[in-house]
Amino acid sequence: MTRLTIALDVMGGDFGPRVTLPAALQALTSNPFLHLLLIGDQQIILSYLKSASDSVRLRTKIIHTAQVIPNEMRPSQAIRHSRDTSMRIALEAVKEGEAQACVSAGNTGALMGLAKMILKPLPGIERPALVAALPNTLRGKTLLLDLGANVDSSASMLFQFAVMGAVLAEELYAMPAPRVALLNIGEEEVKGNDTIRAAAERLKQCSALNYQGYIEGNDILTGKADVIVCDGFVGNVTLKTMEGVARLFLSQLRSKTQTNGLLRFLGRWLLKKAFSRMGELNPDQYNGASLLGLRGIVVKSHGGANQQALVCAIEQAAQEVNRSVPARIAARLDAVLLKSD
Amino acid sequence: MTRLTIALDVMGGDFGPRVTLPAALQALTSNPFLHLLLIGDQQIILSYLKSASDSVRLRTKIIHTAQVIPNEMRPSQAIRHSRDTSMRIALEAVKEGEAQACVSAGNTGALMGLAKMILKPLPGIERPALVAALPNTLRGKTLLLDLGANVDSSASMLFQFAVMGAVLAEELYAMPAPRVALLNIGEEEVKGNDTIRAAAERLKQCSALNYQGYIEGNDILTGKADVIVCDGFVGNVTLKTMEGVARLFLSQLRSKTQTNGLLRFLGRWLLKKAFSRMGELNPDQYNGASLLGLRGIVVKSHGGANQQALVCAIEQAAQEVNRSVPARIAARLDAVLLKSD
Repeated sequence: MTRLTIALDVMGGDFGPRVTLPAALQALTSNPFLHLLLIGDQQIILSYLKSASDSVRLRTKIIHTAQVIPNEMRPSQAIRHSRDTSMRIALEAVKEGEAQACVSAGNTGALMGLAKMILKPLPGIERPALVAALPNTLRGKTLLLDLGANVDSSASMLFQFAVMGAVLAEELYAMPAPRVALLNIGEEEVKGNDTIRAAAERLKQCSALNYQGYIEGNDILTGKADVIVCDGFVGNVTLKTMEGVARLFLSQLRSKTQTNGLLRFLGRWLLKKAFSRMGELNPDQYNGASLLGLRGIVVKSHGGANQQALVCAIEQAAQEVNRSVPARIAARLDAVLLKSD
Repeated sequence: MTRLTIALDVMGGDFGPRVTLPAALQALTSNPFLHLLLIGDQQIILSYLKSASDSVRLRTKIIHTAQVIPNEMRPSQAIRHSRDTSMRIALEAVKEGEAQACVSAGNTGALMGLAKMILKPLPGIERPALVAALPNTLRGKTLLLDLGANVDSSASMLFQFAVMGAVLAEELYAMPAPRVALLNIGEEEVKGNDTIRAAAERLKQCSALNYQGYIEGNDILTGKADVIVCDGFVGNVTLKTMEGVARLFLSQLRSKTQTNGLLRFLGRWLLKKAFSRMGELNPDQYNGASLLGLRGIVVKSHGGANQQALVCAIEQAAQEVNRSVPARIAARLDAVLLKSD
């Protein structure tokens, strides 16, 4: 395996170095091929690395900066004032080839804006899209995109999202001929708005994709489709709604198993059994939404991600590097666009 | 209490009279003030009513028709061919004053189109909206609208939905000064698309509403708001997504408690305890989405509703009659529109 370097925005996220540095060490320990560019406050990073073994420390390189983009800053303003921030330096490291991917838990809007500005979209892509892999009841994964990189999506953007999602499903999740569906308010052809119907027309005519038609919200997790496409507003609300319902169920069940003795023991056992899969809907465990459609790999972690969640995001980025996701999307787009013309 | 008559579309829904008639009898038995207009195949209805007590049977009136709007028919076509169908007769009974409300589990698009055509929107309402009351973690209810009566909503429509939702919350759910929020992809003012931001501006300036700002998908069920407003596309996908996740959790837990003996017993007990509230997310138990904004009361039941779910829908309609919901919405709209002018 060739050298694999990921640029980590150490200062980003709700907890900054307190979470990113332990996650970095854990990721380096579990993946011996991984190198990390740690971008952030040198003093904090150095003092943390003291405890690491040589074999881990030798696979890190520090780029010092104390500048960080605040979470609450408006993206347009954040981008204007992004010089020397950890997020921007991480993205520039990917552009310059010093790293093959960037992971950040920082300001989502700023990350998407800066990534698009610095890394540029692939030819044929109007706007990048955020995608995540959700667990489904068939013990597989279902990719959902866009999760909020865009607030309004045209039919051609939805079509491009479908192509990008299909490539990711094939390359990263080993799904042959992934079933692609459009999220809509009904399964019948007449349902939805003009944009959705225009996207459906375009997808139906594209023989390079295994397009299945419309899918409804209640089937997102049933494994009926491998790639589900929607505009960023709908995707963002949908994902957060799922998180909300999942958290609610888990908290209800946990609160009822706080009793003592045998019941508590059995309750915990049941909880573990029953939710071994569904617990994956817990954002801690599926963290790592990829920004697809750029000339580089960018993985966005939840702002509130804990150590384990951030490790998942780093691993996600590593896998995308190993599978050359951007190059494969570009190649597929070329083929599809040629066929459609 | 004055006489309360509800027109029931006996033939509508996935199961037709097999579900609607048992539900009708159950609703009549539990509410001694209720009268039902049973609209459907007279022979089927009569043979079913044989088993009912006199006191129940005397509170029914049959309007015979064997015509039914198919579930899968395109709404525009269904409306053109709606003459003499059970759904249309039920709506006309409300228009003519023979009933004060209509309940149907039939074709949603057709019901919304016909209801708008026959009952007409209230003054100041561009389009009616579908609303449902969801259980929240604070042991209360949260109203969500629009759930799919419209696929595209303007800022002024979102504003009207907010007014209608607030009136329903006050009148039917006894919430004083209900907290109104707009569903968005972030809480900051800059988030979302132009339509959402324009609606937010309008709501901020309306002193007659207790507008709280934006809310995200993960807070729909946390009780942070009493009335959550969104466009029909987003609302429909969101509601179905919640149903999907809820069903998944329940089915997972049920399948793990199919074992024998003590464990099974304890598992069932835990299931019951933990999900006494969350089980309400089961569509069977919150069935009954009201179509607000018309000069009459229309409650839409799930097509696949079972007997209990349909009883809920009938009860929902009865409560709206008792609280004169359309008249109160009209009055509030008048006041709000006067103030805004």
